[in-house]
Amino acid sequence: MPDPTVPPFPGNIAFNAQHSPMGAFFSFTCGHFGTPGGLGSQIGRPANQDLYIGVKEGDRKSGAPLKCLPFYENPIYDTAPPKTKQAGRGFVSGGSAAPTQEGALLAYRADQLERHYGWATDRWVTPDFEFAIYTPFGSIVDPEQYHPSMSRVCLLPAVLASLTIDNTGGSSTKTGVFAINFNEPGARLLPEQHGWRGKKRVGFALRRHLGVQGMLESERPGEEQPQVFAIMRNTPQEALRDVNPAHGLGQCPGIAFEVAAGKRQTLIVSIGVYHDGIVTTGLEGRYLYARYFSDLNDVLDAALRGWDAFHNGSIDLDNELLNSGLSADQQFLIAHATRSYYGSTQLLEVAGQPFWVVNEGEYCMMNTLDLSVDQCFWELKHNPWVVRNLLDNYLRYYSYYDQVKRPGQGAKKKGFSMPGSPAPSSDFELMPGGISFCHDMGAHNNFAPTGHSSYELPHHKGWFSYMTQEQLCNWILLAASYVAKSNDQQWARRNEFIFQACLTSMVRRSGSSADNSSGAMKFDSSRCQSGEEITTYDSLDASLGPARGNLYLAVKCWAAYLGLAMLFDVLGPAEAGGVAESARKAANNIAACIAGKVGEQGFIPATLIGEAGAARRILPAIEALAYPMYWRNVRQNERSPLEDTPSLQLLAALKRHTQTLLADAESRNRFSDGGLKLSSTSDNSWVSKIALFQHVARGLFNMQEDARIGDVFRQADAAHVKWQTQGESAYWAMSDQMVNGVAKESKYYPRAITTALWMK
Amino acid sequence: MPDPTVPPFPGNIAFNAQHSPMGAFFSFTCGHFGTPGGLGSQIGRPANQDLYIGVKEGDRKSGAPLKCLPFYENPIYDTAPPKTKQAGRGFVSGGSAAPTQEGALLAYRADQLERHYGWATDRWVTPDFEFAIYTPFGSIVDPEQYHPSMSRVCLLPAVLASLTIDNTGGSSTKTGVFAINFNEPGARLLPEQHGWRGKKRVGFALRRHLGVQGMLESERPGEEQPQVFAIMRNTPQEALRDVNPAHGLGQCPGIAFEVAAGKRQTLIVSIGVYHDGIVTTGLEGRYLYARYFSDLNDVLDAALRGWDAFHNGSIDLDNELLNSGLSADQQFLIAHATRSYYGSTQLLEVAGQPFWVVNEGEYCMMNTLDLSVDQCFWELKHNPWVVRNLLDNYLRYYSYYDQVKRPGQGAKKKGFSMPGSPAPSSDFELMPGGISFCHDMGAHNNFAPTGHSSYELPHHKGWFSYMTQEQLCNWILLAASYVAKSNDQQWARRNEFIFQACLTSMVRRSGSSADNSSGAMKFDSSRCQSGEEITTYDSLDASLGPARGNLYLAVKCWAAYLGLAMLFDVLGPAEAGGVAESARKAANNIAACIAGKVGEQGFIPATLIGEAGAARRILPAIEALAYPMYWRNVRQNERSPLEDTPSLQLLAALKRHTQTLLADAESRNRFSDGGLKLSSTSDNSWVSKIALFQHVARGLFNMQEDARIGDVFRQADAAHVKWQTQGESAYWAMSDQMVNGVAKESKYYPRAITTALWMK
Repeated sequence: MPDPTVPPFPGNIAFNAQHSPMGAFFSFTCGHFGTPGGLGSQIGRPANQDLYIGVKEGDRKSGAPLKCLPFYENPIYDTAPPKTKQAGRGFVSGGSAAPTQEGALLAYRADQLERHYGWATDRWVTPDFEFAIYTPFGSIVDPEQYHPSMSRVCLLPAVLASLTIDNTGGSSTKTGVFAINFNEPGARLLPEQHGWRGKKRVGFALRRHLGVQGMLESERPGEEQPQVFAIMRNTPQEALRDVNPAHGLGQCPGIAFEVAAGKRQTLIVSIGVYHDGIVTTGLEGRYLYARYFSDLNDVLDAALRGWDAFHNGSIDLDNELLNSGLSADQQFLIAHATRSYYGSTQLLEVAGQPFWVVNEGEYCMMNTLDLSVDQCFWELKHNPWVVRNLLDNYLRYYSYYDQVKRPGQGAKKKGFSMPGSPAPSSDFELMPGGISFCHDMGAHNNFAPTGHSSYELPHHKGWFSYMTQEQLCNWILLAASYVAKSNDQQWARRNEFIFQACLTSMVRRSGSSADNSSGAMKFDSSRCQSGEEITTYDSLDASLGPARGNLYLAVKCWAAYLGLAMLFDVLGPAEAGGVAESARKAANNIAACIAGKVGEQGFIPATLIGEAGAARRILPAIEALAYPMYWRNVRQNERSPLEDTPSLQLLAALKRHTQTLLADAESRNRFSDGGLKLSSTSDNSWVSKIALFQHVARGLFNMQEDARIGDVFRQADAAHVKWQTQGESAYWAMSDQMVNGVAKESKYYPRAITTALWMK
Repeated sequence: MPDPTVPPFPGNIAFNAQHSPMGAFFSFTCGHFGTPGGLGSQIGRPANQDLYIGVKEGDRKSGAPLKCLPFYENPIYDTAPPKTKQAGRGFVSGGSAAPTQEGALLAYRADQLERHYGWATDRWVTPDFEFAIYTPFGSIVDPEQYHPSMSRVCLLPAVLASLTIDNTGGSSTKTGVFAINFNEPGARLLPEQHGWRGKKRVGFALRRHLGVQGMLESERPGEEQPQVFAIMRNTPQEALRDVNPAHGLGQCPGIAFEVAAGKRQTLIVSIGVYHDGIVTTGLEGRYLYARYFSDLNDVLDAALRGWDAFHNGSIDLDNELLNSGLSADQQFLIAHATRSYYGSTQLLEVAGQPFWVVNEGEYCMMNTLDLSVDQCFWELKHNPWVVRNLLDNYLRYYSYYDQVKRPGQGAKKKGFSMPGSPAPSSDFELMPGGISFCHDMGAHNNFAPTGHSSYELPHHKGWFSYMTQEQLCNWILLAASYVAKSNDQQWARRNEFIFQACLTSMVRRSGSSADNSSGAMKFDSSRCQSGEEITTYDSLDASLGPARGNLYLAVKCWAAYLGLAMLFDVLGPAEAGGVAESARKAANNIAACIAGKVGEQGFIPATLIGEAGAARRILPAIEALAYPMYWRNVRQNERSPLEDTPSLQLLAALKRHTQTLLADAESRNRFSDGGLKLSSTSDNSWVSKIALFQHVARGLFNMQEDARIGDVFRQADAAHVKWQTQGESAYWAMSDQMVNGVAKESKYYPRAITTALWMK
């Protein structure tokens, strides 16, 4: 039985959650009412399966209604009067249900349910049974460093669930069911087998790759055979009541069991996936788990055998979050984000080497680099090697070398021109560029051609343009954060020349070849052709979208220079020579520039050049402070560059900026519900980025100590919980891009794992 | 250019056709207007892809409308006045199109199109281009007997299509497109490559398994690069007109080419599939083609290189059918049936051995044995080894041994009881049974547990009951037909004991252990438990559905006994002893019984016992004559059992029966449109079975020589063409179960290949 300390969720409980193992790009999704969900493999959205999880009075043949959680299309809700909830938990019957049709299927209403949503358990309490899903997580061990048995534990591509019927006070048998209509052909029953310690196993699958296996927890060797059995007809009620519970052509397989009066039984089901062949194109990869598990049966069996560890590990995680000192709203956002993060993770094996991928939610772009840099804090905490893996793979396959476009010299100077570069025009001339990195590695399991992303296009000025400057910063920040955390000197030394190339590329993009004048980005990449670079904030307005002159990106460039300086410091003066100092100077140039931009109204305009951004107020101005903050945190014996005078000036300016925005009497950076608005001029706000912002504002500036701002944050957290759980957003599990609080893009998204930065 | 002799189809051209290679369980389906289709792999229905096959005036950037075949959802039809058709073929413009929106997508109307539907070409002629799909077929060589290079030819899992734009009389460039919106994530472009003889190849794929590759036919080495290029945006028009024709996140990939004024260009596209891993469960199998092709690229390339053979082979097949002497309606039915047959074929490799599967249309049941027996004529003509393969696999994996239920002796005699047998009751006692065969081997790539089908259930009296007697007959008839055709003495000798077991099983089911009294089926299998056996005609009424006393099945039993006698004769007297004679006696008993049942009205009642079938008139009474007919045909030097006196009496009775039904003044076996009604009392009639019936009625009884009956047949053929091509049936390619002429079940079905029996 799960530990009872996770309180019932007080808001709308009818929201989807992803329940996912680590690295399997798989999710058992349920929770939203009246829509299908279920076992989704390699898709950026809930699957299309109707789930029937319920119980009926009487034995299997009973004509009583089967009462299920409402996780299927067009449920007919129970009309029984609500049962009385006891303080905090549990129900007392409020009367009996209205007479229903023989063999009916009824769904519980929300007021008949409680949902306890912990970090790793998601537990539904009905008046008649409890259903809980367990998704423990932790470190994924480096398969090149650890024994395969450890990878078997970390990469098991399954989750566990339990269905408990307590009939100890009952006077007649009850029958429980866990069934799924896959809504596509190919369902089959697994052979009925006896597993570990002789327990009877029944289960079902969809073709070769998706499956469910169940056993009764309380069965003991030598006991009389408990009544667990497989079903497969077109509905669970038909299967239970017909003389033939299973038919080879049945569409809705399931597992059922009878609980005699006076007994209490828990059905444990493992829900898993197994793909054994090559699953990607371009770079051909398989799932790394397929090296450690032989087939779907092996996966489902291993999960059932791991019940104690699954269960106890999940409770431990629940308690860790409960004891974090964070508010219930903050805890919810972390728990919800963690699930959707793991649902997007995909650990492949390419040519015998591990290859880490995080898919970009509904878009399924692979390892989108501007997500990776935000997710690295979580990954560095649990498994720093995946960040190294990502850095290496970007370097090997998805780095490129460009030229830059110096605008408006009036002359069509013909320099050396690279393939794909635009012809020099009267608007610009081509100058040497440098190394940068692609936006992503492909999409939907199709690796893009090396050196190219699936996202970026030339000739664009908004959406789909290149993010050359930003992705260069992102790779540097990832490298710096990885080395700061791991102190992996060997890796740093091997990449010394890359760090040098990155510095050169940064400087050239800043429009200067002389160190003293280098600073934030000035030149667009030649890859843009007639277009212009953008930032990760592609769908926000002019306050955050364009790259040149962008305040947010300028601070990121500052952080990237500091990161390079740190990397050169780690290498030591013999290798780095004076370059660490060059990088620091560039950072200081940017710091000085930004610090001087605080206007009369106490904030820094969104754009550093021109007047276009003068009135635009952006919270992400401080986002990139998260990286030096992180380095200071993990390198406690080292002096932090944040303590240098130019940094202190920058920090003071940014703190004032942030105070101005948060305490704004006109609330220009807040929605009417209290949710935070990244840009005062856009209704599109991103949850993961808000979390990063809050982390810096609280962790570096201690802004919550100002009571007004503390209230702003509390109201914001509450609003952000509602954004995820109410209305159409509730179908999409964790989503990122909220337009006026409704998930419109970036749904089913991994990046909100940045919320976990709030934990100490 | 295809041979022009296939005339335009005179009826409704807007029907789907399956275009399939042999043994790949793959179909490129198109032809129905306004619905998706495209590349379907391992599904019993059209895929869900929008196809854009068309042309526009001007170069790629032109704003002229792109005019396409209407093979996508919600087409907007062209409003231009119809162009004049020249006699037989070709169009003369009837005026220009009404002004349309810049960059619009328009679909041709049916009156702007001609469709030439041959045996292996399906050619669409528009005023602006021609599009043709080539699906040559022939023998699949036995991979254990032939060099792998032959299997590469036979098993190539792709079809070819051509798109020809004749701009020789034009004054400006035209642009052609072949594009597909897969309507699911995972589209990608194939690398642009130079293939055989230096021709430029472009193409696209859906993930790893489905793909299209194209080249221009007229390109010659050394010529200036022709303008063929890949596109991938959200629509083909967007792709052509945008500065970036391709985007990694585009949803609608395609191939486009420009044809200069004065030129004529043909784009050839290969459309293929490749699954490289295990695709089935239970028995784990891969596609046999995967042994001969290395990947999707290899498949697509091999198809393009085979253009001449594809094209010429298809024309040869077209001509063979055109020269068959059959009517246009008959030719259509054969061409349509051949396509849907191959779309359901699936040649696997299980444990290194070939494993032949024909999927049952929309149901995807594997090797449904009551289909196999009807399809064997086609298979024995082209590749007898697949019939042997099927016989062996049924024997190894899907045969069983039962008991039979002797009804109504009043006593609950307790005999030896097998697992799964019902307890003896006052209604029946259990008697020894014998060998029989399952209804199928599983469904949707899931092999059923050995010894069990996916279809059959106990305790049923209709749908889903066991077909023990019928499937026993079917295996015998397959074995007899295989040996008759191949004269494979070795196989026959190896299975002598099985033939013996089959005879024993036949006799025991007839309710007799004494040879002299054995005849048609009397006892149901114990597997039925409380149920009763049925026949393949599961969804027809009492005239054909139940097995006991069934006239159709009695004739099949008669044929099966004759088949066993022939098999024993082939083995020779030393092996067979007197069993050939026993089998013949049983056949004669049945013949005599049936011959005596012709009633006053000149027909034999549908049921031989009781009065229930007295007024029911069934055409399939003569169906099973097809087998002895076939043996006589392929064993020309042997005496046919059809010439024995008892057979002659049976034939005379059945001929009279058939004449009565066909010449019935009340037309009780005809629909109002002239289509044939298998049972006078059911509106459900099956096209494949009608074809078998017509084959016997014409081939054995020469009934078409009676002018009235000749007319009946001609009207029937015309009606049956309309059944397939009009109304909702037109979406489902070839369908079998027509209720009042509309495809209601057994859609997208292989069995109508029985129509090919009409060819000499």
